[in-house]
Amino acid sequence: MALKNDLILRAARGEKVERTPVWLMRQAGRILPEYRAVRSKMGGFKELVETPEFACEVTIQPVDILGVDAAIIFSDILVIPEAMGLPYQMMEAKGPWFEKTVQTASDISNLKIAQPSDLHYVMDAIALTKKELNGRVPLIGFAGAPWTIFAYMIEGSGSKTFSKAKKFLYTEPVLAHQLLQKITDSTINYLKGQIVAGADMLQLFDSWAGVLSPEQYNEFALKYIAQICDAITEVPFTVFAKDAHFARREMGKLNCTSIGLDWTVDIAESREMIGNSKTLQGNMDPCLLYADKATIKKEAEKMLRAFGPQRHIANLGHGLYPDLDKDKVKYFVEVVKEFRF
Amino acid sequence: MALKNDLILRAARGEKVERTPVWLMRQAGRILPEYRAVRSKMGGFKELVETPEFACEVTIQPVDILGVDAAIIFSDILVIPEAMGLPYQMMEAKGPWFEKTVQTASDISNLKIAQPSDLHYVMDAIALTKKELNGRVPLIGFAGAPWTIFAYMIEGSGSKTFSKAKKFLYTEPVLAHQLLQKITDSTINYLKGQIVAGADMLQLFDSWAGVLSPEQYNEFALKYIAQICDAITEVPFTVFAKDAHFARREMGKLNCTSIGLDWTVDIAESREMIGNSKTLQGNMDPCLLYADKATIKKEAEKMLRAFGPQRHIANLGHGLYPDLDKDKVKYFVEVVKEFRF
Repeated sequence: MALKNDLILRAARGEKVERTPVWLMRQAGRILPEYRAVRSKMGGFKELVETPEFACEVTIQPVDILGVDAAIIFSDILVIPEAMGLPYQMMEAKGPWFEKTVQTASDISNLKIAQPSDLHYVMDAIALTKKELNGRVPLIGFAGAPWTIFAYMIEGSGSKTFSKAKKFLYTEPVLAHQLLQKITDSTINYLKGQIVAGADMLQLFDSWAGVLSPEQYNEFALKYIAQICDAITEVPFTVFAKDAHFARREMGKLNCTSIGLDWTVDIAESREMIGNSKTLQGNMDPCLLYADKATIKKEAEKMLRAFGPQRHIANLGHGLYPDLDKDKVKYFVEVVKEFRF
Repeated sequence: MALKNDLILRAARGEKVERTPVWLMRQAGRILPEYRAVRSKMGGFKELVETPEFACEVTIQPVDILGVDAAIIFSDILVIPEAMGLPYQMMEAKGPWFEKTVQTASDISNLKIAQPSDLHYVMDAIALTKKELNGRVPLIGFAGAPWTIFAYMIEGSGSKTFSKAKKFLYTEPVLAHQLLQKITDSTINYLKGQIVAGADMLQLFDSWAGVLSPEQYNEFALKYIAQICDAITEVPFTVFAKDAHFARREMGKLNCTSIGLDWTVDIAESREMIGNSKTLQGNMDPCLLYADKATIKKEAEKMLRAFGPQRHIANLGHGLYPDLDKDKVKYFVEVVKEFRF
């Protein structure tokens, strides 16, 4: 089915757009009362992720309510470790927790390479959402980047420093590369499955890029991201490595269409470092949306001018915070959509 | 009393040194069994901070045990909010917690400007430690940078995003500046008191620099750090803003002797951005100290060469993690001390 609004795909490919497209990381989620209503009917977060009808419903909510230019499938980056053999629980207010973690060579050899069929509920959710969207906006699929997935598999939960995962890189580099390769192979299978199911665009989230040194990031993270970028050429593809300011020049060489930026980097400097062959996505501080509307408008327009009229997808520099006011979030989207250069 | 080892002071001032001096953030702490022995005798962390004899004992331990080129007074950055009128508790495994936080204009006007006499236990600990060190190595005093102290005073505890503190910057900028000025005035008084008590060098820790955008960092953080640098000219002074990669050029203009770097920044690039008038401190990833000794030696020497023989104080890019092996930590110190260009 032809898309009625393909702005984000054209912007990602570097084709001319009439205005800057906009979507928001975590746009499907707790800032929407409509999401909380669906969520309260479920046993838990994972039930929502694993039930295609509900995942579809909350994926489409922000398209209706906020007017964003893309939907992103409601899911979780940790479905990959689970499909590889490490199940997790999502603990209320505490985040993810893995009963088993990876510590030894045999732990790694016991892991399977995930196949799309292992994640049929995501594929079903994508296919259903694609049908329900009925061509209104593109649907984005996603996965975690190998280093971030690795970090959870070793650490077993969130962490301020991910020092156990980093310790593994320093003490067991050969095993680390084996595990990263297995995660990478699983991720390529998973993303290819998402394309088959109907995803129009993909994004890789490297949420914990910022705890690594530039050298370790090259060796244990970018190398695997590059493999994924080389394998995924069917649809526009965005790499977002949070806090990876030090990797911008290298990211400019990736075989992807777009690079996500957080709010700690200067826009003009990032463009210079990444080069002109990539679309940039971002990069408003989510906390701006706590401000009054006049400030939101002023700062959003300043950001739009700094990126310029082409090769930009407006977004935040991180996900929406759950206590943000829906009306302010919607206002930000409106400001972007109404702005003309 | 003349110092027997003043390497760190000479390095900070840009005077010629025979070898690179070394100390480690959090060198007095849980990695040392001798620290844990003292700690287990106390009611809690704050009792240790507030009892000069014990603070002195644990401050000197790493000089004896690790052979570092400086002692840093055992204390906490949150003594300043407490002296201003916001007491805190240090919760085991959870970190600091404030019963009252700052929310309104009257909360701010109720805060006092801290005087050295409000923190007599720190001054007593510095004077006692200075006497007990007997000139072996210099003693470093410290304080939190205004933005980081502000963040705790608004948020009331640690946070991944400090979104409440950042929200306050966006919604109450006038009040934010009032509070930051009060913290700055208190910090200047406090650091001047530390010099009078005997501190040979000072360091400012901006632990939560990395959650701000470059623009907000200039407006709400660097401006106040600059005031402190302009007020403290008696002793060498280091500013360490964790994750403030975006502020390096601006930091080169501060009226201080030295700038701390974390391990996410490239050394040569940082030198270019900060310029040649500052000594650089850092910047090894603490997780390197989980590696085997051959790796520690190789990486430490690579770091030393990258910084060069002058205007460098070797350190980590963050504090030691509590589960690091004392022998590995000591080995890192030895490698630095034995290295010659």
